[in-house]
Amino acid sequence: MGSHVVIVGLGLIGGSLAKAFSDFTDCSVTAMDTDPTVLKKALEDGAISQAGTPESLCRADYVFLCLYPQAAVDFIRRHGEKIPSSCIVADTCGIKEEICRQMPPLAQKFGFTFIGFHPMAGKERSGYAASEAYLFQGASCILTPCGAPKAAVESLKNLLLRLGFGQTVLTTPQEHDRMIAFTSQLPHVLACAYVLSPQCPNHKGFSAGSYRDVSRVARINEVLWSELFLDNAQPLTAELDLLLENLTSLRNAIAAGDGDTLRSLLQKGREIKESLGE
Amino acid sequence: MGSHVVIVGLGLIGGSLAKAFSDFTDCSVTAMDTDPTVLKKALEDGAISQAGTPESLCRADYVFLCLYPQAAVDFIRRHGEKIPSSCIVADTCGIKEEICRQMPPLAQKFGFTFIGFHPMAGKERSGYAASEAYLFQGASCILTPCGAPKAAVESLKNLLLRLGFGQTVLTTPQEHDRMIAFTSQLPHVLACAYVLSPQCPNHKGFSAGSYRDVSRVARINEVLWSELFLDNAQPLTAELDLLLENLTSLRNAIAAGDGDTLRSLLQKGREIKESLGE
Repeated sequence: MGSHVVIVGLGLIGGSLAKAFSDFTDCSVTAMDTDPTVLKKALEDGAISQAGTPESLCRADYVFLCLYPQAAVDFIRRHGEKIPSSCIVADTCGIKEEICRQMPPLAQKFGFTFIGFHPMAGKERSGYAASEAYLFQGASCILTPCGAPKAAVESLKNLLLRLGFGQTVLTTPQEHDRMIAFTSQLPHVLACAYVLSPQCPNHKGFSAGSYRDVSRVARINEVLWSELFLDNAQPLTAELDLLLENLTSLRNAIAAGDGDTLRSLLQKGREIKESLGE
Repeated sequence: MGSHVVIVGLGLIGGSLAKAFSDFTDCSVTAMDTDPTVLKKALEDGAISQAGTPESLCRADYVFLCLYPQAAVDFIRRHGEKIPSSCIVADTCGIKEEICRQMPPLAQKFGFTFIGFHPMAGKERSGYAASEAYLFQGASCILTPCGAPKAAVESLKNLLLRLGFGQTVLTTPQEHDRMIAFTSQLPHVLACAYVLSPQCPNHKGFSAGSYRDVSRVARINEVLWSELFLDNAQPLTAELDLLLENLTSLRNAIAAGDGDTLRSLLQKGREIKESLGE
């Protein structure tokens, strides 16, 4: 018999984890969600073996917190004492420094192991209805051990690799948040700023892949992403300032008709992309 | 026997038009290119029936200029007198106002019909090697008639629809350039500014779809795109100024920890995307 996995929150990530655990492993999956219709649907789908309560935590080998960052911390504050000391608890939040500041002291207090986890997978739809077992195929699985024992990190890593992740990256919360500000948060801010142009509603017939790609993630969950942006305000603001500076240089070259500067800036961009083999 | 099509320049667009005409219509395709190895490859591929010279223009029913904007105008200045009066000449440039300022007087002088054409299709690779017959499948075919007779516009439109375009849009050069500044040029400027971040070379393991989508077109042909940007400097600068303003509002809300403003800006973006059914 496989491990007992408890998933807290059956949104896009929690639902996809549940489906992947049920489809690709022999783990039994218990899930909690504030919406009983979601739990009913997940049971019907075979995504979970049972709908749980906080009491289900007592038998968990692994707990995945698939909630907004502060809600994940609050859940542990409230129910952490039910978690056995053999259990590994992982969040799935898109920021790590704030989480890894609050969680390890709670883990120590309640006696379980905490490891930060960020599955680099998502889509521009949210909620259980958008979840799928194959969401993590080939994606990067980022772990921030935050002082957890090596054996626990190995155990979590091996479990997660069974869900289809393409690679695991071990890093610090600081490094994670600095990189995510660039790779994920900045494109989301950009997408939103982009579609605010008054030309946007008339784009059909005049657009192709470039419009589609930049605007895709403007369909954002603003409550979740506001929390993620504010929890990572310093690195994200630094990336935004850099982008504003580089955009302004390009804008000024275009406005001034300065072809030499313009070509040289575009060339730099092309060379960076090419040097990455992309 | 189908029409005689002459294609000038076998890059990504010219090569793809040649392949689409040869695969999907009974037109005979003659092409010119400054690179003899490209012509040889296109003959081997069956993309063209023959390699031409400017003299081939004498028998053309349709001429497609698949060159950079000013090179297209210069080509007509030099060889326009060889084009028969029954012929329809179309450029394929990404900007239209500058082209449609220079071309109609030349068409009048030499006695042929000119229609502006912009196939809304492309990819982040350039040159004949990247060309493909299916490039235009489902894409928008934008035409700027610039005073050409209705029958000629219908004739060109019907010919092009045989290549797989999903729709045709008739518009003015001004409207075209204003829309393209937003839908195509702005994402290219953005992609370049984005990859200039010092975090970019280290993104692997920390990135997924958002990074990939925003950075895709940073692999740019800087000579072509500098010309396109400078030919459309006013609308593009206006879009850039708007984007800088909206990005700055988002940046300031994040830096100030102002969750209400941040949520409200992100919500606006989401609502625009949703209202477009995207």
